[in-house]
Amino acid sequence: MDDLARALTEILDGRWGDVRAALRTHEDLERFAPPSEPLTQEEYRAHTTAQLMTLTREKFAPDGLTKGMGGTGNFGASVTAFEMLGHTDLSLLVKAGVQFGLFGGAIANLGTQRHHTAYLPGMLDGTILGCFAMTETGHGSNVQHLETTATHDPSTDELVINSPTPGAQKNYIGNAARDGRMAAVFAQLVTADGEGHGVHCVLVPIRDSSGRPVDGVTIGDCGAKGGLPGVDNGTLEFDQVRVPRWNLLGRYGDIDARGSYTSPIDSSSRRFFTMLGTLVRGRVSVAGGAGAATRSALTLATRYALHRRQFAAPVGDEELTLMSYRAHQRKLLPAIAKSYALMLAQNELVEMMHEVAGHEGDAPEESQRELEARAAGIKAVATRHATDTIQMCREACGGAGYMAENRLTTLKEDTDVFTTFEGDNTVLLQLVAKGLLTEFQETFEDNSPLAMIAFASRFTASSILEKTPAAGLIARLKSRAPSEDTDEGELHRGRQLSLFVDREKHLLEGVALRLAKAAKAEPADTFRIFNNAQDHLLAAAEAHVDRVLLEALGSACEECEDGPAKALLDQVTDLFALSTIERHRGWYLEHGRLTPSGSKAVIRSVGVLCKDLAPHARTLVDAFAIPDAWLGAPGLLEPLPSTAAPSA
Amino acid sequence: MDDLARALTEILDGRWGDVRAALRTHEDLERFAPPSEPLTQEEYRAHTTAQLMTLTREKFAPDGLTKGMGGTGNFGASVTAFEMLGHTDLSLLVKAGVQFGLFGGAIANLGTQRHHTAYLPGMLDGTILGCFAMTETGHGSNVQHLETTATHDPSTDELVINSPTPGAQKNYIGNAARDGRMAAVFAQLVTADGEGHGVHCVLVPIRDSSGRPVDGVTIGDCGAKGGLPGVDNGTLEFDQVRVPRWNLLGRYGDIDARGSYTSPIDSSSRRFFTMLGTLVRGRVSVAGGAGAATRSALTLATRYALHRRQFAAPVGDEELTLMSYRAHQRKLLPAIAKSYALMLAQNELVEMMHEVAGHEGDAPEESQRELEARAAGIKAVATRHATDTIQMCREACGGAGYMAENRLTTLKEDTDVFTTFEGDNTVLLQLVAKGLLTEFQETFEDNSPLAMIAFASRFTASSILEKTPAAGLIARLKSRAPSEDTDEGELHRGRQLSLFVDREKHLLEGVALRLAKAAKAEPADTFRIFNNAQDHLLAAAEAHVDRVLLEALGSACEECEDGPAKALLDQVTDLFALSTIERHRGWYLEHGRLTPSGSKAVIRSVGVLCKDLAPHARTLVDAFAIPDAWLGAPGLLEPLPSTAAPSA
Repeated sequence: MDDLARALTEILDGRWGDVRAALRTHEDLERFAPPSEPLTQEEYRAHTTAQLMTLTREKFAPDGLTKGMGGTGNFGASVTAFEMLGHTDLSLLVKAGVQFGLFGGAIANLGTQRHHTAYLPGMLDGTILGCFAMTETGHGSNVQHLETTATHDPSTDELVINSPTPGAQKNYIGNAARDGRMAAVFAQLVTADGEGHGVHCVLVPIRDSSGRPVDGVTIGDCGAKGGLPGVDNGTLEFDQVRVPRWNLLGRYGDIDARGSYTSPIDSSSRRFFTMLGTLVRGRVSVAGGAGAATRSALTLATRYALHRRQFAAPVGDEELTLMSYRAHQRKLLPAIAKSYALMLAQNELVEMMHEVAGHEGDAPEESQRELEARAAGIKAVATRHATDTIQMCREACGGAGYMAENRLTTLKEDTDVFTTFEGDNTVLLQLVAKGLLTEFQETFEDNSPLAMIAFASRFTASSILEKTPAAGLIARLKSRAPSEDTDEGELHRGRQLSLFVDREKHLLEGVALRLAKAAKAEPADTFRIFNNAQDHLLAAAEAHVDRVLLEALGSACEECEDGPAKALLDQVTDLFALSTIERHRGWYLEHGRLTPSGSKAVIRSVGVLCKDLAPHARTLVDAFAIPDAWLGAPGLLEPLPSTAAPSA
Repeated sequence: MDDLARALTEILDGRWGDVRAALRTHEDLERFAPPSEPLTQEEYRAHTTAQLMTLTREKFAPDGLTKGMGGTGNFGASVTAFEMLGHTDLSLLVKAGVQFGLFGGAIANLGTQRHHTAYLPGMLDGTILGCFAMTETGHGSNVQHLETTATHDPSTDELVINSPTPGAQKNYIGNAARDGRMAAVFAQLVTADGEGHGVHCVLVPIRDSSGRPVDGVTIGDCGAKGGLPGVDNGTLEFDQVRVPRWNLLGRYGDIDARGSYTSPIDSSSRRFFTMLGTLVRGRVSVAGGAGAATRSALTLATRYALHRRQFAAPVGDEELTLMSYRAHQRKLLPAIAKSYALMLAQNELVEMMHEVAGHEGDAPEESQRELEARAAGIKAVATRHATDTIQMCREACGGAGYMAENRLTTLKEDTDVFTTFEGDNTVLLQLVAKGLLTEFQETFEDNSPLAMIAFASRFTASSILEKTPAAGLIARLKSRAPSEDTDEGELHRGRQLSLFVDREKHLLEGVALRLAKAAKAEPADTFRIFNNAQDHLLAAAEAHVDRVLLEALGSACEECEDGPAKALLDQVTDLFALSTIERHRGWYLEHGRLTPSGSKAVIRSVGVLCKDLAPHARTLVDAFAIPDAWLGAPGLLEPLPSTAAPSA
């Protein structure tokens, strides 16, 4: 790695760079790496469980808990370490995420002192392996409609957990099929008076100490999946399973000794979203893991493209590297630029999360809502980018890319589910748009079309620009932008930001206008109007995240001292900005933001930037600083010992 | 399946509909289906080999040989049956493709009578399992640079097969790791005088009758891949392996008893491309298999979207089906429309192949070159569509889509390599553009940038429109197109075709102009000029294939009698046309072919067409007529028995 790469690494590593550095030089890198031999599903699960147990010796999990819960309160360090696992075996990443993030997070955030005391030590040391049993066969995205019930029986002061329909079966639950002893079960809480209080979380033992399912719990095995072979996903069904009343994680809603329901939050909808909101760290972590896996894939494909040669140049006999070709440059370099943007934006997101989680007492609601919207947007865009980019990298390595030992297909398979778990991306982008369409205090409603329409009718466009950490930067750069009438300005940062902000604002205003019509329409027409606006809603959310990404890159450039690292980062930023504008040039042309000749100039500039950055491609991916022991892929990283191509 | 679906099936099934119908009602459908239990790699390979042996009882393979070779000469039936295997286990499809298509095809097309007599019976009945050993570790796309040598030794009248460098290792070779007894090895043929005659194909035994590698042959195992677990891909290295001279498949170039090289084709480059050209059926078959797998995925995701419900409508308590949502319609329906276009275009391609293969004596060179260009273009677009669409379908089914038993992830993994094998798509699209840039008799050159430049300088745009089976249709429809000044015409077929043809023509002319500059430039500048034009070259090829697809759909509409089937097919055609124009609207706006308001009208029309077609989605995928036994996917096809969602 050269000095330039090292300088870029420091910028990309962010506030918890020491956590990253410690893991990169961990004495036992191999421990986290994927298995070197093919394993059967059962062997792979055992391997991953063993890896998980060794993770209990690391600081990952205690860093994620407050000091009061026996942790260190170094939340950012915890999530950053988790992100680094995204370079290793993704089965381990997800298994650890289920145990420490989801199961542990439910106990920590939804439980009270007695739950913390009773269960967190076992969660940390792995003596209690746990499940996060939210998703059901019938309901994934629409969590408020879960069908599992938890009914209070005052005669024994127990909660009775039940799966009333086939659709109420808990499904795709990690840690369920093989290891889990206890599950954090999300269920409709019902008091003895028959009143429903909405979805709450209850700790339910699912296996006894010998590993047998407890009475009334039926455990199924999801078997083979599209990836993540080391994660034992399964199904859980409950037939009138009884647990003590105090197994209810009652921080936001509890049943007292007399059988009465009490909650510090009056509105049931608000309570529900507050509870879900505390679990935001899972989404932040998935975005981070997706980013890491993508950078691994880009490193592999870029290093291959720099030594793999095919077809001769018009002059000389030596064949050309793949990276010499425009089509190949145009595949890899914009994806690298977007990965830079996402890594910087992820760092910002982790800082936001760290501040909210570490806030004295409860953080202001607005900060919490901002964090949730940001996490939803970054997660959706980072996981989309992962799936698209890893697939592209696989193809860019031809036959070698299809060999499992070269890791690209595994990275693709393992991260594939990221686009639809921890919130389906389409649903999450709607959530982002919802957050932009309304003041934050009004967001305590469900995700239904009707609720979306209600928000839109209260939309104030003025708030858009304030919802960004770099608002000052935008104003400053925009003021320096050249006139929009010239086509020469596409490399000017202020002009780029203007185009981004303009697109976001226009799309949001358009959506608001459309949905406002729905608010005034007959009930029978409202869904039609909402549906006609759905594309625009999603486009607005994407435009928002694009802008957040450009700001993250732009801020990094501004903070960087003049020198070669800044010069390179500036070009990367230009490439991200212009390749994004290029992708949406249809919109810019339709709305008079680009002239036809300006649009062609953007395309040309992307090509030139790709060509100019190609000689720096190795530096750009070296800056991701991924240990070779984690990259694997002997067929991609280095050229064959002596394959001089003969001349024709 | 309703009458409407049946009527569409008849249109889609094409000339060899009887072959499709026979396979759909085959008494032993299960035999071709994927294994119902997870298998280890070795178990899977054994299973696939057993499946392959049962295929020898079918007519697939003999239909692919001329009567003179012991077949039936029903080439179209053979390739259509192979396409249908794309609905079953894709490991079987590829294993059969290697044995009957590639290994058998090399013997049939490159060999002479004595090779046919000696080896085709064993190829057909599976007693000689064979490999097609073309790709090397060092050279895949650039076949002319293969490094393996076949040197004639007059003292023993043998050919000595050798792998001189690590890069000369044959790699990713199907049937090599476990089953193959013989390989059709592509190697640089060298006569005793030291003269090289270019790449030829030689039959080389690689295992003895007990299955042990023969002396001098080192066989490696590629192990786990990103998919196709039943195919035993491996490596082959040759250390001075000797075979009789007559193992050279000498139809296009032979060594006589005196050790002299003879060939009916003088130009070595022309000879090489003639030899490769005879193997075009592999590419046609991959395109067909990709199309079938895509239709399976679309059937699964569409049926799921029609019963899966999530989130409530503003009116009533029942949740809405996924298919109700605009975003979901916009994912599935344009992909279905493109699959219709590809299936019809594939039928045309198979007919072209059938006529060329069955031509009395050699088919005219122009027909052969047209077939090759068409096969390259359809293969590239069909496999790109497969990868993108199957991935989309996986995501559209959420968690259920990630379960291996629901087949979408397997379809994705197994077809993934289709984009880069049997010709890398990027290379194939350049081949398409090359064919369009020149008269066919001039295409006997390699794929290097220099050759491409030479072609372009001889480009005549006039030939574009003639290179299509539907030239008359275009002229007829274009003459009925409304003025381009109105925005209302986007549903008019003639206007749609005009936009397609216009884009293709303009892009090709642009590429020709750019490359003509390169032809006049200093040698040191030519690659730079070529490289700057590479995007345009690829875009031109895609525009060409898009137009071929629209013509295929347009012709089917024209041939259809008025009635509900025609009405539906017309809408599907409009959706394909407009969603394609929408995807390229940036280009149309930049080049003044669409006004901003016209472009917005296209977007609106796509949305309206999706909405209008959504109620017919089941009919549209039922028309693919895929047996349920092949679809599998219990979690997707039908709703759960009783999952009425409770109201909130």
